[in-house]
Amino acid sequence: MLASPRVGVLGGGQLGRMLMESANRLNIQMNILDADNAPAKQISAHDGHVIGSFTDRASLRKLAESCDVLTTEIEHVDTYALEEVASEVKVSPSWKTIRTIQDKFQQKEYLSQFRIPMAEHRELLKNSVEELTAIGEELGYPLMLKSKTQAYDGRGNYTVKAQADIPSALKALEGRPLYAEKWAKFRMELAVIVVKTKDGVLSFPTVETIQEDSVCKLVYAPARNISESVNKKAQELAKTTVAAFEGHGVFGVEMFLLPDDTLLLCEVACRIHNSGHYTIEACALSQFDVHLRAILDLPIPPKSLELREPAIMLNILGGSTPDSHLKIAERALSIPNAGIHLYSKGAARPGRKMGHITITAPTIHEAEILIQPLIDFMDDTSVQDTNILFKHPKPQPSIASPKLTSAIGVIMGSDSDLKTLIPGLNLLKYHFGIEPDVSIASAHRTPNYMAQYASTAASRGIKVIIAAAGGAAHLPGMAAAYTSLPVIGLPVKGSSLDGVDSLYSIVQMPRGVPVATVGINNSINAALLAVRILGAFDAKIQEKVVEYARIAEKENLDVKCIKMKEIGWETYHRQMEEKK
Amino acid sequence: MLASPRVGVLGGGQLGRMLMESANRLNIQMNILDADNAPAKQISAHDGHVIGSFTDRASLRKLAESCDVLTTEIEHVDTYALEEVASEVKVSPSWKTIRTIQDKFQQKEYLSQFRIPMAEHRELLKNSVEELTAIGEELGYPLMLKSKTQAYDGRGNYTVKAQADIPSALKALEGRPLYAEKWAKFRMELAVIVVKTKDGVLSFPTVETIQEDSVCKLVYAPARNISESVNKKAQELAKTTVAAFEGHGVFGVEMFLLPDDTLLLCEVACRIHNSGHYTIEACALSQFDVHLRAILDLPIPPKSLELREPAIMLNILGGSTPDSHLKIAERALSIPNAGIHLYSKGAARPGRKMGHITITAPTIHEAEILIQPLIDFMDDTSVQDTNILFKHPKPQPSIASPKLTSAIGVIMGSDSDLKTLIPGLNLLKYHFGIEPDVSIASAHRTPNYMAQYASTAASRGIKVIIAAAGGAAHLPGMAAAYTSLPVIGLPVKGSSLDGVDSLYSIVQMPRGVPVATVGINNSINAALLAVRILGAFDAKIQEKVVEYARIAEKENLDVKCIKMKEIGWETYHRQMEEKK
Repeated sequence: MLASPRVGVLGGGQLGRMLMESANRLNIQMNILDADNAPAKQISAHDGHVIGSFTDRASLRKLAESCDVLTTEIEHVDTYALEEVASEVKVSPSWKTIRTIQDKFQQKEYLSQFRIPMAEHRELLKNSVEELTAIGEELGYPLMLKSKTQAYDGRGNYTVKAQADIPSALKALEGRPLYAEKWAKFRMELAVIVVKTKDGVLSFPTVETIQEDSVCKLVYAPARNISESVNKKAQELAKTTVAAFEGHGVFGVEMFLLPDDTLLLCEVACRIHNSGHYTIEACALSQFDVHLRAILDLPIPPKSLELREPAIMLNILGGSTPDSHLKIAERALSIPNAGIHLYSKGAARPGRKMGHITITAPTIHEAEILIQPLIDFMDDTSVQDTNILFKHPKPQPSIASPKLTSAIGVIMGSDSDLKTLIPGLNLLKYHFGIEPDVSIASAHRTPNYMAQYASTAASRGIKVIIAAAGGAAHLPGMAAAYTSLPVIGLPVKGSSLDGVDSLYSIVQMPRGVPVATVGINNSINAALLAVRILGAFDAKIQEKVVEYARIAEKENLDVKCIKMKEIGWETYHRQMEEKK
Repeated sequence: MLASPRVGVLGGGQLGRMLMESANRLNIQMNILDADNAPAKQISAHDGHVIGSFTDRASLRKLAESCDVLTTEIEHVDTYALEEVASEVKVSPSWKTIRTIQDKFQQKEYLSQFRIPMAEHRELLKNSVEELTAIGEELGYPLMLKSKTQAYDGRGNYTVKAQADIPSALKALEGRPLYAEKWAKFRMELAVIVVKTKDGVLSFPTVETIQEDSVCKLVYAPARNISESVNKKAQELAKTTVAAFEGHGVFGVEMFLLPDDTLLLCEVACRIHNSGHYTIEACALSQFDVHLRAILDLPIPPKSLELREPAIMLNILGGSTPDSHLKIAERALSIPNAGIHLYSKGAARPGRKMGHITITAPTIHEAEILIQPLIDFMDDTSVQDTNILFKHPKPQPSIASPKLTSAIGVIMGSDSDLKTLIPGLNLLKYHFGIEPDVSIASAHRTPNYMAQYASTAASRGIKVIIAAAGGAAHLPGMAAAYTSLPVIGLPVKGSSLDGVDSLYSIVQMPRGVPVATVGINNSINAALLAVRILGAFDAKIQEKVVEYARIAEKENLDVKCIKMKEIGWETYHRQMEEKK
């Protein structure tokens, strides 16, 4: 039954608060163990909450007594206390899983058994300069020195750039259990939210995360500029990783994508995760909804985890003044399609996660345009000095931010085709307000460029390609062979055969590779066909197509036809001849 | 500043609860005036709430003292008490607006001044049989007898089917202030959520509402089967209506669409409204988000009110058993793309609104397919006897529920074209899993049917039309003239001219009306072009297009090419000849 189970949560920060939003909508009582007035407690007015620390054994026992199932929003909990209560109450995920994962070295050792690819790593047993020097010679520099436990958001990590840094690195992490990790020269960081249920594992889309000072700044859903095969590999790696652990619930899996398109597991969290906040707006069920369903053995339709629309999530961090995070939220009020989430955590400390903003749009490119003013605003007002202890060198962007492209790509075999294209290009730009992406790409003179253009068009956000060519007109058909997008072929009349050569070359494609051919030299129709295609999926463009037809109808009926009736067909003809 | 204003709300039912969800995300303190443990109070754990009735003057005064702005989730409030506190605290919308709107006759009289089209209505001064008989003779039967005040969800309405019903109608509504309204023979009910801000009015999309027993059952966003011009008229009527009232906030406007496509205002509510719940999932900002922003003078980007995806909202009403609403919610857990909202209102009474479900999908047709099992389940388990006092006769559906259509429409000029289409139709159905919508529609023999088919195709969910024709092949071009969708023309080879007649007739369209022409008899390419168009906007279909190309590549390289190398081109040729 939906209404009966009581869920206990260790921790009531922003993750617990967003989990509470999901519980509230299903009228599920969720009891929070955390300090009084913790963010999650503020949106739940019953008396089943427990005041105390999620690391305190007595408080945990009290929580367990009032619940049917326990879960956690944080890994740094007392797993021995959880083990004790596990005989009386269901603990999801298992305390064993939490214990393995909260020690990052243990986590890696455990996953090695399942052949999960990871950066090479070595345990430090003595935390001595000699020991780390030997490891440095083996793994090379820079290398990461990491605390096995209590490490998150870059805290507990130290980048050892060269052998000379070793003493200060050991000093900075003094007293902690340590391991060293080979530096991963990744080109991107990817993440996948996986949910483990009684029936197996399901996953949300592969997203791209941008970290700044080791703290997540942005999440792009879906990841930009990765191939379908990388996406599949990321999904498989994430699911295989999570399948290795016991218990139900949501896991956050972070990965490095290397320049050769191989993947390394970065780390896994056995809880709802910052890289999954975008799911609230972008998917039919959020990571919070499915975590709750997973731990309560309620159904999760896999389709509900698919992306409804691309999204970009931006974290709002505490800044140099107590209200700088509120200024960012205020600025976001004016950003179209921005969903704002403030966590009500009270006083802001520099670098503290105070809220987040998710922007959705029909394409990731549109979302990028919408969010840019907010990123600019944030970068302008951001902290100069954070109190984050151990700074990670800011990663250089290894791929340039993709150029924002038009939904319509126009290519021509030769610049001599441009004059034929002009009426169509003008129509797109001035009537429909669409600036097309125009290139010269000859199938015969620049076959490699043509192939590259067509094969990457879809990933650049192009939805339809117009290709103009004359004579032995191969361009439209060759472009169609290199893309899965619709290609519109415009036959250009050459010096002989009146354009019939171009028409036949374009329209008579072999079965399997279609080209949408329009009339000879009719670039207006090529442009109109392109906007009809876009309009079938965009009501505003479709309305403009309707309007265009209305204007043409009016022009013919109310102007030309009436004029011919008025002045007679003979005068009309004479005037036409004079205009020539 | 975002964090400082305190908002007071009269009423803490489901509308207040969903408003609280929006306030929580912006960390805005919202104080609820309602009974202890009212739904809205359950998700807000501060001590600023007031226990009491929203009709009680002392409680209202207490609320006003602790707030910067007051708003309401219900119209049945004491507007004289609101008028009193209006000098100390901002009241949004204005108490004047609430006073005018809460009396439905007054509401209509007021709007008459603004030339808002409405059903004819007459005030009853004596509530006598003679008076109503005279009105009945004037307005005709059936007519609606309505209470001016305290009427909602069909309560306070009585359908007078004939003169003989008059005494029982007056008896049923005894003691209430009454008016009579001419029966509107509508073909559909439409609704628009409008928000009035300091800068003017903005609106959400036009939706279709389905009422059962005078209670909203379903909301379709956008409204199905209405033309763009009806949509525009509905938007204008809704905005003009709301512009007539004072104060800021969300208004729900309900309209009748008559068979001749004219619109009548049904009624307006000066609050967040059941017909706008779909906005939580379907728009970037919900009606609750924008109500809060409007009353606090915070920015509302108009783009954030557009539909992100079509949606269907289904109300969950209390049934014949105390838990029947929970059973519906449980069933909904298994429905893909279903967002579930339970209101935590405690005991269910038959007909009481206990929650709602919103299903989103890329098209309204897909949403219809997803929600159907839930509607069936609900109809099977629904109440036989509700306690709704005055039942409205169940309206007969005046238009048949639209048949679920395919995204691909296929038409042919003559059944003799079918054999040419078969390879393409098979490809769509068996490789791509898309059942096309196939018709015979001759431009010459059935011009009216052809015109109707093409002009309504977009509203039926069709995204692309394939039109096959031979000889003087007019069908593709004529279909293109009647639709704004992309039309793919398939030239069919006739008895003479080898199909060149068909090709020229199809491809050489005049400027302004494009047809995407494929090779003669090449229905495979017509089908592939259609799926490429769909695939540009649907990653799953695009993946299948890529797969199709991969199979063709493999077939050519790994099978045919290898075989020819193995057995030699001469043997290969001999085997081909033998197969013929």
